[in-house]
Amino acid sequence: MTSRDGYTWTPTSGLVAGVPSLGVITPPTNIVTSEAEYDVIVVGAGYCGLTAARNAAVEGLRVLLLEGRDRVGGRSWSSNIDGYPFEMGGTWVHWGQANTWREVVRYKMANDVEKSFDFSRGVRHFELNIGDQGSTMSHEDEDALLAAALNKFTNVDGSYGRDVIPLPYDTFHTPTATKLDDLSAQDRIHEIAGSLSPDERAALESFVLLCSGATLSTMSFLEFMHWWAICGYTYAGCMDMLITWKFKGGQSTFATKFFQEALATNRLAYAFNTPVQRIQDTGEKVRVTTRDGRQYHAARLISAIPLNVLGGVAFDPPLSAGKRAAIAKGHVNQCTKVHAEISNPDLRSWTGVTYPHNELMYAIGDGTTPAGNTHIVCFGGSNKHFDPETDIDATKRVVTSMFVQQKAEPEVERLVFHNWSKDEFAKGAWFFSAPGFLAKHLEHMRERHGNVLFANSDWAVGWRSFIDGAIEEGTRVALEVREELAMAAKVHTAATARP
Amino acid sequence: MTSRDGYTWTPTSGLVAGVPSLGVITPPTNIVTSEAEYDVIVVGAGYCGLTAARNAAVEGLRVLLLEGRDRVGGRSWSSNIDGYPFEMGGTWVHWGQANTWREVVRYKMANDVEKSFDFSRGVRHFELNIGDQGSTMSHEDEDALLAAALNKFTNVDGSYGRDVIPLPYDTFHTPTATKLDDLSAQDRIHEIAGSLSPDERAALESFVLLCSGATLSTMSFLEFMHWWAICGYTYAGCMDMLITWKFKGGQSTFATKFFQEALATNRLAYAFNTPVQRIQDTGEKVRVTTRDGRQYHAARLISAIPLNVLGGVAFDPPLSAGKRAAIAKGHVNQCTKVHAEISNPDLRSWTGVTYPHNELMYAIGDGTTPAGNTHIVCFGGSNKHFDPETDIDATKRVVTSMFVQQKAEPEVERLVFHNWSKDEFAKGAWFFSAPGFLAKHLEHMRERHGNVLFANSDWAVGWRSFIDGAIEEGTRVALEVREELAMAAKVHTAATARP
Repeated sequence: MTSRDGYTWTPTSGLVAGVPSLGVITPPTNIVTSEAEYDVIVVGAGYCGLTAARNAAVEGLRVLLLEGRDRVGGRSWSSNIDGYPFEMGGTWVHWGQANTWREVVRYKMANDVEKSFDFSRGVRHFELNIGDQGSTMSHEDEDALLAAALNKFTNVDGSYGRDVIPLPYDTFHTPTATKLDDLSAQDRIHEIAGSLSPDERAALESFVLLCSGATLSTMSFLEFMHWWAICGYTYAGCMDMLITWKFKGGQSTFATKFFQEALATNRLAYAFNTPVQRIQDTGEKVRVTTRDGRQYHAARLISAIPLNVLGGVAFDPPLSAGKRAAIAKGHVNQCTKVHAEISNPDLRSWTGVTYPHNELMYAIGDGTTPAGNTHIVCFGGSNKHFDPETDIDATKRVVTSMFVQQKAEPEVERLVFHNWSKDEFAKGAWFFSAPGFLAKHLEHMRERHGNVLFANSDWAVGWRSFIDGAIEEGTRVALEVREELAMAAKVHTAATARP
Repeated sequence: MTSRDGYTWTPTSGLVAGVPSLGVITPPTNIVTSEAEYDVIVVGAGYCGLTAARNAAVEGLRVLLLEGRDRVGGRSWSSNIDGYPFEMGGTWVHWGQANTWREVVRYKMANDVEKSFDFSRGVRHFELNIGDQGSTMSHEDEDALLAAALNKFTNVDGSYGRDVIPLPYDTFHTPTATKLDDLSAQDRIHEIAGSLSPDERAALESFVLLCSGATLSTMSFLEFMHWWAICGYTYAGCMDMLITWKFKGGQSTFATKFFQEALATNRLAYAFNTPVQRIQDTGEKVRVTTRDGRQYHAARLISAIPLNVLGGVAFDPPLSAGKRAAIAKGHVNQCTKVHAEISNPDLRSWTGVTYPHNELMYAIGDGTTPAGNTHIVCFGGSNKHFDPETDIDATKRVVTSMFVQQKAEPEVERLVFHNWSKDEFAKGAWFFSAPGFLAKHLEHMRERHGNVLFANSDWAVGWRSFIDGAIEEGTRVALEVREELAMAAKVHTAATARP
């Protein structure tokens, strides 16, 4: 099936909107009557909404799942082209991500992962292009460079962050942490600038921008430290957990498992292509009005809508001042991710940084396509933001500008991407916070609003911004809803067996 | 409430069998009729059985939970004495343990953990006593010593095990791994002996014996490599994940959450103090006979019985030859764990190894008790196995022999321990495999037997031997049973709502 989301370009097809994905759900709805009774309505079918809907349905609740898109997965989905998966958004998983890996094992997918990196052949080096200065180095030297730079960046306490964030699931566990949230990455770099070589500084800046999709001055230093801590306080840990292991079949093979399990209960009603316009809590129940004017109601509603999108939904009664302030500010990640098929098969083991002058700044060899081309995945962000679909020739130049140290400029045979900034259901990529934002608004984002519960990876306490945080949040609210409804003796399946 | 399990000793009370625990369940049963219909019987209320019973009950099945002990938790439970928890078995948890941490967050306990270590005060050093040679060093030097020794031990592939075990959830992913399973730790030490200093060798040997509870020649080298890999291939990772974070209130505060959630469904029947004698699969259903002659039956049975205990249960029809062979061999961990309250409060920041001549060989300062004493936890194993309850004066000497480099020998004010080797429901501590065992028998242990499913941390694929592996296994079989019964249209709660 083909989703409306995403773009492909090849020399023969030109730019095409919409790409094939296993995450597209057909038929798009299974609702037979608008009169149905639901225990809970879940808005959003990313990993958070899928988890909430699945858990609620499996545990006996009648669930209605509403989604604006034609597919599951939200900000994490894959497009399978000629049987080869391109990851349009969230990609990598690791066994250190508790909620994700619990599901990976549960769905017997622990052996269905493979490494993005393969440093075994062809051009086995890292190239670092800073303005018009360029050099190449081995991947061992790349690791040493990044590790040295990141150790300087993170060592605010003599223990590389272990004292400041001893418990990554409690970012603000220490008073110092709050102060560090006021710093931007730029502020921290100014503190240590004298100790950084030009190569270290460029590698460091491009790496933290890869994490944030923002600019150095718009990203919170503490939020980066939170990533660093949860990855084990080392660069090696960051690489292992952030950018190494991906699903052989693509993210959508994972997301569809949640949906299928929920559907098999016969307690899941769903409607895709159904954006929500208004959420009204009468006190007795919650009524949702879709953009096309349909209405549904339930005892509870779980909003799995991302922070940057919540402003487009009308809430009655209005949300709290704190939540409205958080929504008005939003998060700062405007990552651009572009996949390119490159004619040179020898680039499989290549990685590179071209910074700060290029619109894409960080790229790695990510696979070999069925055509035998090298698959390169490239990242940019707010630093020099661009919309890849606007001018494909320019986008191809931005991609080939990553390869300065190669004998011949590689030919671009295919582009695949999703413009998350222009996506009305995302308005940005994964959550990344501006300085001061989390200390002020984390609790606002997490708070419920009467019978409406808010769940999203954007305000998870652990792997916030990750698939794992989405599952954490979906799990949290599904349990809360079940326990509340059981307490109120409203769960119709409860009154069965007694021992 | 007081459990039959465990022992305490103080100068005034002498040796007392049975210790208080929050894990004791009262009333010990809620069964009102032996005629009740169950979908599934779960045998064993450790974390594996608790998870299986909870998931099944929450997801609509009628569950009977049978347990030989008077408490939940199996090989992981805590005794709260004067409000202070002593961990009798499995203790430490970490956010890198997927199944455990998913539950920790779900039960809102992520902030209920604290570090065992506190290196801030008093005697802040590591003492290493090898025979009659002894020395002290800083904890930084301790870490450097262990890291150097373990790096030599694990570096079989030039990448500290990353090539041999790239995927810790698939131990035998590479052909090399199978060969390494034939090696004992002793074999591997012989390979690298020339490169180890005496201090490195003693520290290394005591550390790997701490992990296995076995002897160097009876423990599989690959199984240790599996621990090393899943901890991130570093000594720092091992320390973080194996022995740092524990529950402030003790393990039993965690285990009881699973039980209470299951009970709240009204679909959980349970009986403690009810050892199982015979499990008979008629093909139509499974009948279990308890030691006191009661019989129960259900569509499926989940055995959460540990490997070393399975031989004491009669199965009809008999188990497969492979499973019987695995049971006959068993696992090799006979760890002895002894808690001691020590009169000297300055020992809070102390750690020590006394090896190989002492019955306890590895110990750390683990807390400060309400009386102001230092709480020390000490570990021994098969190396010089002993039963701490047999001769308390001897046990006190074994404890004080850990402190060779102190000005005054500390006074022992209290001992707390559980003799896992003499425990009929454990017959050993956490699973550790002999050379060759896993390559041959992992799949035998995991295989089902008609309508009987076998789940235990002893054969988990990830954190095998850990609480996490228990939850992994309970999750696996609960899902399998639910899907089977749903498929057979036997789930009595299924036929309710349709969207």
